[in-house]
Amino acid sequence: MSDPAPTPPPAARDKLLFTPGPLTTSAGVKQAMLRDAGSWDVEFHEVVRGVRRSLLAVAGLSPDDGYDAIPMQGSGTFGVESAIGSAVPRGGKLLVLANGAYGERILRIAECMDLDRRVLRSDETAPPDAGAVDAALREDPAITHVALVHCETTTGILNPIAPVAGAVRRHGRSLILDAMSSFGAIPIDLKAEGIDYLVSSANKCIEGVPGFSFILARRAALEATGTRPRSHSLDLLGQLRALESTGQFRFTPPTHAILAFARALAELEAEGGPAGRGRRYLANHRALASGMGRLGFVPLLDPALQGPIITAFHHPADPAFRFADFYKGLSARGMIIYPGKLTKVDTFRIGNIGRLFEADMVQLVHAVEDTLRELGCGLPLAPP
Amino acid sequence: MSDPAPTPPPAARDKLLFTPGPLTTSAGVKQAMLRDAGSWDVEFHEVVRGVRRSLLAVAGLSPDDGYDAIPMQGSGTFGVESAIGSAVPRGGKLLVLANGAYGERILRIAECMDLDRRVLRSDETAPPDAGAVDAALREDPAITHVALVHCETTTGILNPIAPVAGAVRRHGRSLILDAMSSFGAIPIDLKAEGIDYLVSSANKCIEGVPGFSFILARRAALEATGTRPRSHSLDLLGQLRALESTGQFRFTPPTHAILAFARALAELEAEGGPAGRGRRYLANHRALASGMGRLGFVPLLDPALQGPIITAFHHPADPAFRFADFYKGLSARGMIIYPGKLTKVDTFRIGNIGRLFEADMVQLVHAVEDTLRELGCGLPLAPP
Repeated sequence: MSDPAPTPPPAARDKLLFTPGPLTTSAGVKQAMLRDAGSWDVEFHEVVRGVRRSLLAVAGLSPDDGYDAIPMQGSGTFGVESAIGSAVPRGGKLLVLANGAYGERILRIAECMDLDRRVLRSDETAPPDAGAVDAALREDPAITHVALVHCETTTGILNPIAPVAGAVRRHGRSLILDAMSSFGAIPIDLKAEGIDYLVSSANKCIEGVPGFSFILARRAALEATGTRPRSHSLDLLGQLRALESTGQFRFTPPTHAILAFARALAELEAEGGPAGRGRRYLANHRALASGMGRLGFVPLLDPALQGPIITAFHHPADPAFRFADFYKGLSARGMIIYPGKLTKVDTFRIGNIGRLFEADMVQLVHAVEDTLRELGCGLPLAPP
Repeated sequence: MSDPAPTPPPAARDKLLFTPGPLTTSAGVKQAMLRDAGSWDVEFHEVVRGVRRSLLAVAGLSPDDGYDAIPMQGSGTFGVESAIGSAVPRGGKLLVLANGAYGERILRIAECMDLDRRVLRSDETAPPDAGAVDAALREDPAITHVALVHCETTTGILNPIAPVAGAVRRHGRSLILDAMSSFGAIPIDLKAEGIDYLVSSANKCIEGVPGFSFILARRAALEATGTRPRSHSLDLLGQLRALESTGQFRFTPPTHAILAFARALAELEAEGGPAGRGRRYLANHRALASGMGRLGFVPLLDPALQGPIITAFHHPADPAFRFADFYKGLSARGMIIYPGKLTKVDTFRIGNIGRLFEADMVQLVHAVEDTLRELGCGLPLAPP
């Protein structure tokens, strides 16, 4: 596959997506889709092999570390369901740590597949309680697997991996990490933490386009699951075996999204890998937080818990503020933000990831200020 | 969403894909992906609504006919699994009609989900036996659903719908049609045949890019399935309800593939809908069949059973013919064909669908002739 065509003149300026995905992607990533690749052809197999190798490299893993990168068709949720359904054996039991919508989603996935399960909930603005995990694993030997969401985009909290992973290792259980919104920008040491499965998606910090997810799986753990999958489409071991024996996905791959992803991985490397990308996202987050702070917005989270991926803000108390109008005002200015997802508190969210830079965050804050004036809000805003 | 940018000069000429998918797509379809759409934004919701409306129109259905078009992330197989898993209730039983790999795949899907099931196999070069279907439904009242593959691309056979659908209707059961490779080019009357579920994919006769499938479902049948899905990701009723209540997919949609699909649907309409597209594919098939016939190739199927989508040919008897070399010779000439999928007979397959025209089929036949001479085969070929 040679380089894509040069940039065409944009027919319409896309709105900037300050959301946790789908994201604003680079022109190069989108142009990589101007090709039709044959999924049975060796040239495409080489692209897939390269993508799988690069994913291990992004994770800081070498081929000798015993992990495989396995792409799976569908959105990130399909990848999570594939990991859960493939990892937890019949007779196994899953402990889900939930402090937001994505933890609850894992629980729902387990419920649909009739998996024996238990949930430990913590407040949406606090990390999971590692002591409670330790106690649950001690008192319930039936639990075989623990699922943790790394960056819970419901709030933007970054759930610390080490305390939970330590408890899981001490009790000899298996850890499944939903690193959907963190992998590629926040370093994660799978070997040291003993993570058996990490799930992420093409359209998050690697800045590809949506269409597939991927799972980094410890090979020995996955191979021990046996060959009686719960789902034919989402069978992770089946997918790995097909990729290894034929170079192919079992079922039609999203060829264009994979060509885009290969380009996105090259752009990630050019930016200095996860460390470089993480620096940009952190700079984006800081520019946003300070600009929004000046306008009087109050972030939901304690700064010590706040991740650099997405930031939740309380609705201001000003009666002139109505989220629907605020959203429309920003949209009219070419900027798309994200509504809140909490049940108890009114928030909205602004993503810092994708092809966005500090200058974009500054522009967004200007647009927020203009929109607030248009709505008739007093500035700076009164505290919520 | 406004029109995509003008055609960029191709940096490399893509090989033509004479395969049943991924396909060669139009420049316009690929260029529609040069946009980043927000999945939460109303503009994108309008695109999705338009796509769902257009799919009903392609099926010749009006909104009053009681059917819904529901896109589902993942490949076509994910769509089939979604339909099977959502349609057949716990306690239900599926009768699978199999005369090729895709019928067997449906059986495997049912097996993975522990569905009560039965299979009626027929020879790969013969259609299902409607009399046997009738007898099975009469003697086994536990069977609630019947699954039939319309165009079985293992051979290219077009399985007649009417005889099977008639038996299913007479016995008051529910029919699930895998129309993956036929919908959009071969007219199918869902109402008259009493088809409750039809599954197809973006990357077949509608000539979009791969990334999602879609299901046309009779609303009353789907709603009667209740709300205890077997899979969270592949829950068809859940997807429909989210699309109707929020305008959104439940989980991140492949936004770029959907923008491409909207363009592909417009191109289908411009070509005269399924009738016009079917005429082009039939012309492609005829040009291919007559050209290959002149070279001495023998088609696998009786012409009365052969569909216009994909054509299987026997390997020639000439000892100088080796498929791997033949494939490579054509690939070097910029043309990708498809290997066979039969267990008993050596065949290869050539697809007639995608952005291919009669002139492309003629060029392919020239390339086949050149490649055979290069391999040292005597022409015309001796019969197999």
